[in-house]
Amino acid sequence: MNKDSWVQYISMPHPCLGDNTADVDRLTALLKQQLDARFIDMDRAIIASLPHILRKSNFDVRCILFGYNQHYHLIDVQPSTECLPVYGLAIDLGTTRIVIRLLNLCTHSTITENTMDNPQGKIAPDVLARVHYADKPEGLDYLQQLIIDAINDQIQAICITHKICSKQIMSMSFAGNTCMTHLFLGFPAQAIIREPYIPVVNRQMIFSATELGINIHPHARLFVFPNIGSYFGGDLISGILSLDLMHHPEVSIMVDVGTNAEVVLGNKDWMIACAGAAGPALESGVSKIGMTAGPGAIERIQQNNNSFSWQTINDKKPVGICGSGFIDLAAVLFRSGMLDIRGKFVPDLCKDRLYHINNIIHFQVVSGEQSANGKDLTISQVDIDSLIRSKAAMYTILTTITKSVDIQWKDISVFYVAGTFGQYIDPASAITIGMIPDLPLQQYRSVGNTSLEGASRVLLSRSDIESVSDIHKHITYIELNVNQEFMNRFSAAKFLPHTDTSLFPSVMVQSN
Amino acid sequence: MNKDSWVQYISMPHPCLGDNTADVDRLTALLKQQLDARFIDMDRAIIASLPHILRKSNFDVRCILFGYNQHYHLIDVQPSTECLPVYGLAIDLGTTRIVIRLLNLCTHSTITENTMDNPQGKIAPDVLARVHYADKPEGLDYLQQLIIDAINDQIQAICITHKICSKQIMSMSFAGNTCMTHLFLGFPAQAIIREPYIPVVNRQMIFSATELGINIHPHARLFVFPNIGSYFGGDLISGILSLDLMHHPEVSIMVDVGTNAEVVLGNKDWMIACAGAAGPALESGVSKIGMTAGPGAIERIQQNNNSFSWQTINDKKPVGICGSGFIDLAAVLFRSGMLDIRGKFVPDLCKDRLYHINNIIHFQVVSGEQSANGKDLTISQVDIDSLIRSKAAMYTILTTITKSVDIQWKDISVFYVAGTFGQYIDPASAITIGMIPDLPLQQYRSVGNTSLEGASRVLLSRSDIESVSDIHKHITYIELNVNQEFMNRFSAAKFLPHTDTSLFPSVMVQSN
Repeated sequence: MNKDSWVQYISMPHPCLGDNTADVDRLTALLKQQLDARFIDMDRAIIASLPHILRKSNFDVRCILFGYNQHYHLIDVQPSTECLPVYGLAIDLGTTRIVIRLLNLCTHSTITENTMDNPQGKIAPDVLARVHYADKPEGLDYLQQLIIDAINDQIQAICITHKICSKQIMSMSFAGNTCMTHLFLGFPAQAIIREPYIPVVNRQMIFSATELGINIHPHARLFVFPNIGSYFGGDLISGILSLDLMHHPEVSIMVDVGTNAEVVLGNKDWMIACAGAAGPALESGVSKIGMTAGPGAIERIQQNNNSFSWQTINDKKPVGICGSGFIDLAAVLFRSGMLDIRGKFVPDLCKDRLYHINNIIHFQVVSGEQSANGKDLTISQVDIDSLIRSKAAMYTILTTITKSVDIQWKDISVFYVAGTFGQYIDPASAITIGMIPDLPLQQYRSVGNTSLEGASRVLLSRSDIESVSDIHKHITYIELNVNQEFMNRFSAAKFLPHTDTSLFPSVMVQSN
Repeated sequence: MNKDSWVQYISMPHPCLGDNTADVDRLTALLKQQLDARFIDMDRAIIASLPHILRKSNFDVRCILFGYNQHYHLIDVQPSTECLPVYGLAIDLGTTRIVIRLLNLCTHSTITENTMDNPQGKIAPDVLARVHYADKPEGLDYLQQLIIDAINDQIQAICITHKICSKQIMSMSFAGNTCMTHLFLGFPAQAIIREPYIPVVNRQMIFSATELGINIHPHARLFVFPNIGSYFGGDLISGILSLDLMHHPEVSIMVDVGTNAEVVLGNKDWMIACAGAAGPALESGVSKIGMTAGPGAIERIQQNNNSFSWQTINDKKPVGICGSGFIDLAAVLFRSGMLDIRGKFVPDLCKDRLYHINNIIHFQVVSGEQSANGKDLTISQVDIDSLIRSKAAMYTILTTITKSVDIQWKDISVFYVAGTFGQYIDPASAITIGMIPDLPLQQYRSVGNTSLEGASRVLLSRSDIESVSDIHKHITYIELNVNQEFMNRFSAAKFLPHTDTSLFPSVMVQSN
């Protein structure tokens, strides 16, 4: 029997005249002992059903629990002969997309994983606008209901596809950024986005699924990850859990790359975190041809002698360029000398790929013959400048957080690049443009959706959920102080790869 | 400020860039410190309302809480300038009657106290029959709903009379015997009344008022006293709390006299309890004229030379005799010699008050001219025999529990007689017939409805509610082993006052 599991088997001594302890107290005493728990709570309906279940099962039961801090909720009690699987749902509550993973809590296997657009996107694509919308009458309720309805729809679809009853889903976990979590729970988020940036709640919480209107087991519990503040949400705490950062003796760093860059640095003894705006250039792009990853987006660019080869999503004819392709492009252009160290196009090398549109210099990435709409796909000097500001911001944030604790790049054992966008970035390209430090490539690890991974872990393991509050307490959040020193670092980083080329020896070797 | 109160005032430092702790976490950190709490829980709707309330009140609030074991529920947060009273409702959930007391939690004053018949009485007057009824389809739900509807009606009436809003009632406590508590909570009680007599739950619990359908503050919490087993319920635990038995250095004893005699003996270091059947003669009586206390019941009888004087409830013409009157009558008859030490009528002294009805000897208590219905009120030898068995059972239970821990009567500092029936018993009469030990009268203390008193205490004081689980753990329940020794004691006690008259020196002095 797995003592770390949420599914526990209990064989109870039968009551007798010499031991007439009540049913609830008899069961909870054994559970407390088995789980080293302080409290075992249960809904009134479970208490009412207990005498029948215990006697029907000859006091041999399997219990499904959920909770933390030695305080657990008893969700269901079944005869130990019951062999229907027990399921849990892990949810990554992204601003743009929501990912749902169905897990078998007995075997720990993943049954399915579904991705859907966040239905709040139809109100506004960005978080700020949604928070403003929530301020309108009924706005918050509506935004919350959109998410809950969408999740219920997904649950229904999953149950039909996999032929399971929704009552078999007994726990759920939610990891999302601070605003998304507030909107999901129906908490007003206005104070999060205005100085001094105060969430309604930081701490982790458990709700009953019924209370939130989620159609699974009526006594199911729903875990919501804690946040550290406005800009460091439950998705990142979940990510830290999934990578076990707080148990490593070596120092490692985790970066979630997006419009905001969220960074965690530390080991088992200490952990600091910060977040800063990196600009939109890294994710959906600001250029006319910039787009989020989707069919026809150029996601990878390589140099072939004097021309480029590209790779698009789904091998469609190119319609635009997504973040990872844009970083590759800048790296290729810089390595070929078509961009100088200031990030300016070099006309002598770009030749006829460079031309003016509306008085702004543009570079032809894909010719009209090759593109999806028959027109040239170009990027402008303005686009490149924007990318350079973004990459400089990222590098400056990384430098600032490491310097704040006197850590050198060489002291970092693993550099985790997290997030759905992060996993597509080619570290070699990112190093070439000076966005991330010049570490050996094998030290970079692309870890994908760590938020979903951590959300899954709390459903499978009691010790992992206990770790969440440890992580929450373990992290020191530092405000990025945008002072003169920060601005000096930022200015120095606005070159390819950097004004101080000694910081990027591998890039300089390639260039020579 | 009273730190022991459930109403706490908190003045919070305002959030700022240097301290952007979330609203919930900021408030709970201060509450935890102020209350020495481990957990502060709150419903989702309170969390959602917190940002508005905190800012409206300039972060100066009064919080209403409830809970135990350092785990509290935040029921409401109001501006500290709010001056509407906060109320609590203490409920004694008796089999026959329900008593509701409304308390002002700020001033600790009692606003009102209402008594009503337990509406389950219309299903059956006794607990056993109700438990059987609960076994029928919908039976349990119906019994539960009867109680809840009756309580809601009372709450509505109280609110109208006292011009308060039901939302101002923020906590509630319930003390009742084990079966009544189960039926109130909708828990099946069948296993309680069948060997090996297993309740569904022993432990104390908190429910939300909304969950139970009680119409007070939507986040109000409702405390239910724990029980020790089938025959030692929350009403007795509540009674022990109200008398502070577990804090006394001296040994005291508390007896709740009724059809069952429940006895607690102990002090701050140890406490034992037992319960046993004393027979119905002590409460409603088994005699033809026996009745529960009500208008016209003879509740007190005294000897006046060769005749008796009686006192009836509400000074009506006598219609019957209630338990306390019956005990007085037996004492008077014994002292006057009309009953001998075997409890048999002495014809020479009873004279023409003694006559046969259906071949059974009857004694005229009240002549037809004086009674309400114009007929003689009589008791038979059978009634007296029944009373003697009951009083002998009571005395045997008291002897057995004290002997089990080698306590002498002289070691007992106070003898508490609890219960609504108990408060009407004249200890002098009860000693005369050998029902209770021959202690100096000033050591007897009639304490009335201690169950309601204890239920009130948990609403007024955090330390008192913490004591409840201490009491629960502190008590050792001993099964009354009805063995040969018990039967020998019982036989010896079936005399007036006892075969061993040296045990009742004060009675013997009167007789001489």
